[in-house]
Amino acid sequence: MIKIFCGNIVHAPKFGELEIIEHGYIALKDGVIAYIGQEMPTDWAVYEFNYFYDRLIMPSFCDMHLHAPQYPMLGMGMDLPLLDWLNTYTFKTEARFCDTEYAREVYAKLAQELIDNGTTRVVTFGSIHTDSTLILMEEFENAGITGYVGKVNMDRNGGTNLEETTEESIRETERWLERCADFKYIKPILTPRFTPSCTNELMSALGKLAKTHDLRVQSHLSENTSEIAWVGDLHPDCKQYWETYDKYGLWKSHTVMAHCVHSDKRERDAIKANDVVVAHCPASNVNLVSGVAPIRTMLDEGLWVTLGSDIAGGDVLSMLGVITEAIKSSKIKRIESNWTKDFLSVAEAFYLGTTAGAKYFGGGDGFAIGDKFHAVVIKDSDAIDVKQLSIRERFERAIYRTKEQDIIAVYSDGRRVK
Amino acid sequence: MIKIFCGNIVHAPKFGELEIIEHGYIALKDGVIAYIGQEMPTDWAVYEFNYFYDRLIMPSFCDMHLHAPQYPMLGMGMDLPLLDWLNTYTFKTEARFCDTEYAREVYAKLAQELIDNGTTRVVTFGSIHTDSTLILMEEFENAGITGYVGKVNMDRNGGTNLEETTEESIRETERWLERCADFKYIKPILTPRFTPSCTNELMSALGKLAKTHDLRVQSHLSENTSEIAWVGDLHPDCKQYWETYDKYGLWKSHTVMAHCVHSDKRERDAIKANDVVVAHCPASNVNLVSGVAPIRTMLDEGLWVTLGSDIAGGDVLSMLGVITEAIKSSKIKRIESNWTKDFLSVAEAFYLGTTAGAKYFGGGDGFAIGDKFHAVVIKDSDAIDVKQLSIRERFERAIYRTKEQDIIAVYSDGRRVK
Repeated sequence: MIKIFCGNIVHAPKFGELEIIEHGYIALKDGVIAYIGQEMPTDWAVYEFNYFYDRLIMPSFCDMHLHAPQYPMLGMGMDLPLLDWLNTYTFKTEARFCDTEYAREVYAKLAQELIDNGTTRVVTFGSIHTDSTLILMEEFENAGITGYVGKVNMDRNGGTNLEETTEESIRETERWLERCADFKYIKPILTPRFTPSCTNELMSALGKLAKTHDLRVQSHLSENTSEIAWVGDLHPDCKQYWETYDKYGLWKSHTVMAHCVHSDKRERDAIKANDVVVAHCPASNVNLVSGVAPIRTMLDEGLWVTLGSDIAGGDVLSMLGVITEAIKSSKIKRIESNWTKDFLSVAEAFYLGTTAGAKYFGGGDGFAIGDKFHAVVIKDSDAIDVKQLSIRERFERAIYRTKEQDIIAVYSDGRRVK
Repeated sequence: MIKIFCGNIVHAPKFGELEIIEHGYIALKDGVIAYIGQEMPTDWAVYEFNYFYDRLIMPSFCDMHLHAPQYPMLGMGMDLPLLDWLNTYTFKTEARFCDTEYAREVYAKLAQELIDNGTTRVVTFGSIHTDSTLILMEEFENAGITGYVGKVNMDRNGGTNLEETTEESIRETERWLERCADFKYIKPILTPRFTPSCTNELMSALGKLAKTHDLRVQSHLSENTSEIAWVGDLHPDCKQYWETYDKYGLWKSHTVMAHCVHSDKRERDAIKANDVVVAHCPASNVNLVSGVAPIRTMLDEGLWVTLGSDIAGGDVLSMLGVITEAIKSSKIKRIESNWTKDFLSVAEAFYLGTTAGAKYFGGGDGFAIGDKFHAVVIKDSDAIDVKQLSIRERFERAIYRTKEQDIIAVYSDGRRVK
């Protein structure tokens, strides 16, 4: 089945480089990109022609770190630093997800808002509750989202309503993993919340599961200085935070580590050497007064940096918003560093929010031949000077100014989902 | 003519203090607030009853610094520091406003977007072009905006297409002032762009006009270190930037100074002593890598601080966005200052975007008896947990999450304008 798309194509095959094809064409064979270029492909019998004429067609977005059960508190309670924020607001909110009906209501809304904003691939934290996490996976799958969801493990420091016993956490994780075979687009990812939430015994069991089931892992790293000090107290044998994951086989290729605000050279070297993925969460790092992550340094050193909304520490679910927050955060770093660190260009931040994330899901460089089609179509025809501006200028404005309703079509894994 | 409004009223009569009246009432007599309270006023014959039941009713917003002719470049070209940014993008964009038809198209759209986002009072830069500035005033007035607009003065350093002769600048300013009597809601404000744009002769003439016509003044102050150094070179007799305005009678009560990022104690003392108004532009200060303004310090010292979108150095026109940017900026300051400076609470930043600005236009504390009604009505009924959350929590979420379409009614100077 051949589908052809026509429009102004903008994608980022390489970091910092946009490829722009004005009135260009993309052809899909069974949802997979078979052609991209300036000329209309004529050698196939076309089943469906999608003529987006003067619209912008660009890759859809990858949110590499978000907490689904924090969606109800989005936009509230950002007046405390991380550990106090967790205990005061967050754990209480997540505890409500023992109620599967509530989970259904919340997760259906979250899935819809993600798709409406062009986020088609995610790496997501659920809560400790197995059944609600399965509902999250169902709702994501139904909405057309692709990616990873994790049942959270926490057998200590969760307060009265958000803790499992070690045995329960392991048993429920196994039960959850058995049920995950039901899903086509959403896969499981092991999710020890962060080192202070998991006993050594639990970490060890998760490390074994990661190995026997060949599972990916997500967690948090070096977000806040008090957190880092606490981790040091809990693991006096480890020199640095990352080693508390490494000790149990959780620090490995494709492990996603959110934040990494305070990761020094040694920790960054360990990230790079092990093909660990940094999920940079610029809005959350400011909202919880965690710090400003050294993203340019990480990129210069060759680390794999992606972006996360980190709701509800982050206040912005749209990845367009997260991309502009990443630019702003890098400009703060430029101010802080006495202008020695370049800030991120729009093209660079766009790469982090699209291609860098897509690679986690097996994607290639931008709209790459052989990849499933993940795309948004943006309407900017009501804006000023549309006819006079270059596509590059319109692209830049679209990154800053696109609203939900301007995203007129979304494709995920070859299917139209909005 | 009596109008009564019912809804969940939230306003900020004092800095940092919200007054919340759940299912409360506001009564207007001829557009002026005559009553606010918990009980339904029954002693008047009501002409119109506006039952907003469970909606949020709060004061509309004051944008104390924006550049109307930069609206076409909103969301683009924020990759350069101030002086390069002005020469590369901004002056070229503003030069297009010699075309009054273009001005009409752009300013009508800007006025509509301001109203749609609940901004009803403004202090605005036009361009050097008298006729286009009059069109801006017309379009603002037609859309229902209240406030000040200035024809910009610049007789040096504007490049080939954006400079007046000194004589022309004075003559055109006088011609413009004569025409301003035509407007009811929009008043003129003298607008020397910034010291590098105006010769001493022009500054002196504007100072005289300010006095003879009893006019207010707006300009820029200490935004960027290169700018400050340049001002120092131009005025070797002045110790500090502000003195270049003071020398010509432009530094006086109700002079609005945008940015003040690098204003030290001595400059801040001069701001306070002269009842000068700081228009804090948090988004722009980051986008142009200018710095992070010391807002908490200014507030502690008793300066009059308000907020500005500063489009198009700022990328956010909605004042709800500017309020959250101000909070974020203050959190960056908290990080920078090793946690010695408190960040702004949501209530504090809301005060800066509403009451602090309203006072510039003669308004009182929040919804004050005797003030013309300036308000927005926000619908948040589709959000999660609406029935369980307190009005304070819903207010906080509304500040972070309200979209244009959630603002279902806007009142300006007693009139419904959306």
